[in-house]
Amino acid sequence: SPHSKAIPAQELIPVFLYAEAIEKELVEDYKFGRQQLIEIWGHACAMAVTKVFPLASMAKKQPTLLVVCGPDQNGAIGLVCARHLRIFEYEPTIFYPKRSPNSLYRDFTTQCEKMDIPFLSYLPTEVQLINDAYNVVIEAMLGKDAEPGELKDPYAGILGTLKQIRIPLISLDVPSGWDVEMGNNEGISPNVLISLAAPKQCATRFLGKHHLVAGRFLPYDVQKKYDLNLPEYPGTDCVVSL
Amino acid sequence: SPHSKAIPAQELIPVFLYAEAIEKELVEDYKFGRQQLIEIWGHACAMAVTKVFPLASMAKKQPTLLVVCGPDQNGAIGLVCARHLRIFEYEPTIFYPKRSPNSLYRDFTTQCEKMDIPFLSYLPTEVQLINDAYNVVIEAMLGKDAEPGELKDPYAGILGTLKQIRIPLISLDVPSGWDVEMGNNEGISPNVLISLAAPKQCATRFLGKHHLVAGRFLPYDVQKKYDLNLPEYPGTDCVVSL
Repeated sequence: SPHSKAIPAQELIPVFLYAEAIEKELVEDYKFGRQQLIEIWGHACAMAVTKVFPLASMAKKQPTLLVVCGPDQNGAIGLVCARHLRIFEYEPTIFYPKRSPNSLYRDFTTQCEKMDIPFLSYLPTEVQLINDAYNVVIEAMLGKDAEPGELKDPYAGILGTLKQIRIPLISLDVPSGWDVEMGNNEGISPNVLISLAAPKQCATRFLGKHHLVAGRFLPYDVQKKYDLNLPEYPGTDCVVSL
Repeated sequence: SPHSKAIPAQELIPVFLYAEAIEKELVEDYKFGRQQLIEIWGHACAMAVTKVFPLASMAKKQPTLLVVCGPDQNGAIGLVCARHLRIFEYEPTIFYPKRSPNSLYRDFTTQCEKMDIPFLSYLPTEVQLINDAYNVVIEAMLGKDAEPGELKDPYAGILGTLKQIRIPLISLDVPSGWDVEMGNNEGISPNVLISLAAPKQCATRFLGKHHLVAGRFLPYDVQKKYDLNLPEYPGTDCVVSL
């Protein structure tokens, strides 16, 4: 009978369906601060980059990276990531086309500026210039901050450029332009995905080589409640490869 | 002549004389936030503890630690340290006799409480009870937040107890009860000192075995300006042993 063949409901629900709710719980119940979470995630993203692209493995003579930052939280995490990569002796350059007036994000920007991390005033449309100048592009643009339907310039144009680059592309959390659940067949195809806290549902559509999760700091009860079922973080590492 | 024997002025100045000014510069010029700095330092202190006392090296069956937190920033760093140690599978217990009404510190407290880290309602005066229950005591009481002259109860009493314990004692930054410059001959004698950002002048009086610095995140210009002259941080480590 059709009933005997029915798949149990829990098998239809990907373990990361509830990932969206985790951040809410961290902020509202555990009282994690935004500044604190952005610092934790930005640092963890930098650690993930050092794991996948160790300093000594960089193809080009200089360990250059381009970090493209969006206007909201995902972009702020990109700024923190760039700052820690600088401390780890990489040479990040930031492209941050729309700066937020939010003082939280502005302070993270000042930290990068005062550390003499260069900011690009525009992104070259000639893709070869990006391929030649950088080893890797990290896109921290929209994440889950925006729905694909909302995609406006300059981000639509930037995503068009990032679709053409030949150097590895890293996305922080939800690849920009993707739907949190459905992904985006016609969108960017990052080589590396760094999921914040836990993978979002769209991570099932990720076809790149390296998927890492930056959620070591999550309280056990949160991990258990959302049945994250992640591999163990090695030693004191703040990221783990799936 | 006396002049030819004069020691050049810069040799008379300990390299860490200006350590106090660093935090001011981080906050006022670089726009680091308090929440951000406390998270960075608390995490780094937990990493330092894992280096000196790896989980497998704990003398007692359970990897228990007692974290004694003061009312201000040093205590908040202790709370963050305890939280990360819990994530690293240690079993911290917190003694936090005077809680700050400051919402910043209150939120760090909530994070620990919601993670079911036990809080002691009083510190046993019978020192043997502390020796038996814990592997290590971390004191994050006064740091540089208070001058020794201000030392009041309950902190005077707690320091009296900590002077008698036989298990290792870790101090965060300035050992509580010490003068930032002169130390305190009659005060506590920590076995491990974790200096935040850079060693304070009193670190010259530290006679314990392990001195670590948690300042990897410091911008190069700050390190250079204050002539910190620290050993290189290994790999992506956030702490370094002196």
